[in-house]
Amino acid sequence: MMNIAVAQSGGPTCAINASLVGVFREALKVPDIDAVFGSVNGIEGIINNHLVDMKSLIKSTEDMELLKQTPSTVLGSCRYKLPDRQDDDSVYRKIANTLIQRQIGAFFYIGGNDSMDTVNKLSEYFREISLDVKIIGIPKTIDNDLCITDHTPGFGSAAKYVAVTMHEIIRDSSVYSMPSVTVAEIMGRHAGWLTASSAVLHALGESAPHLIYVPECKFSLEKFLKDVRQEMAKHKAVIVAVSEGIEVPDGVQSGVVDNFGHKYLSGIGKYLEESVRSEIGCKVRSIELNVMQRCSSHLCSRTDIDEAEAIGSAGVRCALNGDTGKVMVFRRVKNQPYTIVIETADAGEIANKEKFLPTEFVNKEGNNISDKALDYFLPLIHGEPDIVIDKGIPKHFTIQESVLK
Amino acid sequence: MMNIAVAQSGGPTCAINASLVGVFREALKVPDIDAVFGSVNGIEGIINNHLVDMKSLIKSTEDMELLKQTPSTVLGSCRYKLPDRQDDDSVYRKIANTLIQRQIGAFFYIGGNDSMDTVNKLSEYFREISLDVKIIGIPKTIDNDLCITDHTPGFGSAAKYVAVTMHEIIRDSSVYSMPSVTVAEIMGRHAGWLTASSAVLHALGESAPHLIYVPECKFSLEKFLKDVRQEMAKHKAVIVAVSEGIEVPDGVQSGVVDNFGHKYLSGIGKYLEESVRSEIGCKVRSIELNVMQRCSSHLCSRTDIDEAEAIGSAGVRCALNGDTGKVMVFRRVKNQPYTIVIETADAGEIANKEKFLPTEFVNKEGNNISDKALDYFLPLIHGEPDIVIDKGIPKHFTIQESVLK
Repeated sequence: MMNIAVAQSGGPTCAINASLVGVFREALKVPDIDAVFGSVNGIEGIINNHLVDMKSLIKSTEDMELLKQTPSTVLGSCRYKLPDRQDDDSVYRKIANTLIQRQIGAFFYIGGNDSMDTVNKLSEYFREISLDVKIIGIPKTIDNDLCITDHTPGFGSAAKYVAVTMHEIIRDSSVYSMPSVTVAEIMGRHAGWLTASSAVLHALGESAPHLIYVPECKFSLEKFLKDVRQEMAKHKAVIVAVSEGIEVPDGVQSGVVDNFGHKYLSGIGKYLEESVRSEIGCKVRSIELNVMQRCSSHLCSRTDIDEAEAIGSAGVRCALNGDTGKVMVFRRVKNQPYTIVIETADAGEIANKEKFLPTEFVNKEGNNISDKALDYFLPLIHGEPDIVIDKGIPKHFTIQESVLK
Repeated sequence: MMNIAVAQSGGPTCAINASLVGVFREALKVPDIDAVFGSVNGIEGIINNHLVDMKSLIKSTEDMELLKQTPSTVLGSCRYKLPDRQDDDSVYRKIANTLIQRQIGAFFYIGGNDSMDTVNKLSEYFREISLDVKIIGIPKTIDNDLCITDHTPGFGSAAKYVAVTMHEIIRDSSVYSMPSVTVAEIMGRHAGWLTASSAVLHALGESAPHLIYVPECKFSLEKFLKDVRQEMAKHKAVIVAVSEGIEVPDGVQSGVVDNFGHKYLSGIGKYLEESVRSEIGCKVRSIELNVMQRCSSHLCSRTDIDEAEAIGSAGVRCALNGDTGKVMVFRRVKNQPYTIVIETADAGEIANKEKFLPTEFVNKEGNNISDKALDYFLPLIHGEPDIVIDKGIPKHFTIQESVLK
């Protein structure tokens, strides 16, 4: 008999609780697993011995289904990055203490880049001190910027939100007779995956977004204004999708002062809006898709949620097979019909690395996404789960604040 | 035999196309009605004799169902307010010319306050020149600020978007261990209906939104900061819903300069965010729900969409009964089960007036919504339509740009 622990880390997504359900549901099937501990606020819960008994919290299949349709991290999250052991091993010792004291034989860490670094460091540490605790990383991030894996859980739902919302914004932008420009600012500080996913609308016959800017391409304000003018000659309402992370003059993103002497508190969207207003002079607005793109579970991708649960379950089987220091990854076998398999990669190969849009996904001009990318994106946003509704609002599964304190 | 015309006006909503379908579908049932003309860009289409033949555009029941799930105005919109006839009657004559030339016996104007003013003025003009064209207003606005009617088509879907999204934002805000404040800025320049609708989450057992500010209550920054501090003592993550229209110091809303010497391009949310940051110093962010709250058809209320179609149909029956200068309105008969009837009101009683939140809907402190309001709001957000999906994205019905040119 052994206990296991699971934690959630990094920024919220719509799929991170589904991966928790995957771990939990798989653990229930294993007679050798006794308690399933939830670590509160990511690895901080292990460090501080702040664990909750998941079996007493998730009591039914209905609870699991509700948790799958609940965005964000039910166990809380953290932005904690483990120090190097040479610098400070006190945290490592605290972690080992909790795991030993709680008789935890396997720990599953659902998170992004930083969490995979934690998986890597801890697995090396456990090996050195001969502590037999398996540690497995379950990837998640709306940024889709993890290496090796075809895509990350959480990305498909965020991409679906972006596509559906941009589609609706196109309709909203086309009502008046005067020419206009609409700039939508989409998350992605270094990689343009999420912004690029708005191009799936082209597969529905939409000409918009007419311009798509990603951090992978060098950005020039002059070229941007030229692009906008060109599109305005073709379309009454020009729609622009832009990654929050494109490179702009110093001070714009940090909230200091831009070319126009304005203070930009809201980032790149406002900056481009003001640039169009002052240089072109037409009706223009900017829209920040903000946290809605990562937490709009009512609009999640069924593919994403199902995969997120499956990869959590696969993590448990992997640990039971004796693996450790691994991250679960997706390999895409084919697109017709869309087929993936779940495999493992060494955490060290994934930690602290970023995956960028392939060059062939971007058009030659560097201002839109090529149709070649659509086969990649479309399967990831496919399908809608049946959502349980209460009083017109999707129900959430939550744990009382007092239990998590 | 006669023709009819229909136009859409004002800001987009999720329900305005459903009302168009209501007019169209009802007209198809009437053997005496020949052509159904769509006026492009609201009344401007009538003024400029720019009409399209709806029967050649909407060809099937499937088209109608797609149109019902398409946000915004398929025929375009306008912000045109008719001048007073004493000042300039040339526009009136142009309108009469088009109606006579096209043999239009009834005109249906779907819109908000300004559109009802147009209905009123035109009906008086037609009476004076003895032109037998019935003119009927079909209300719509997410602001819900029209008099006499219990509520307006478009409001229920916007309220559902606000409630569902705020629910998800609550989850997104609760992940980290440090205290935080999240300010959500919601549409409503004069009336707080939409912001107040976020209180339906209290009926689901959520304590958030912990603070709700509407334009009907006098706003004080000092009191706001005191409120936030009080809520922070009770909750780790404080959630604030605020109407874009609350009264703040001169210059803040207009984008000049505020107390802190910052330029606020994004309105009240950013202003309150900066105020909390500088005065309280905790983690804080603001989120503008932006146009998504008026165009997110994927999340519309079935009640709203069904009612929007029904009130459009009722408008046609009303005109055929010989009425003119009327606006169709809802009267709520009871809440258990929710029952409304459609009646008429004189356009003059609705035009240029605003309906505000009743005093008893706001709590004594003026910083939240009373539970008494929930019976009013909850039925309006009830139900989800079956949405037709293509490639993971709700389909839209659109008219080619070239046809509308």
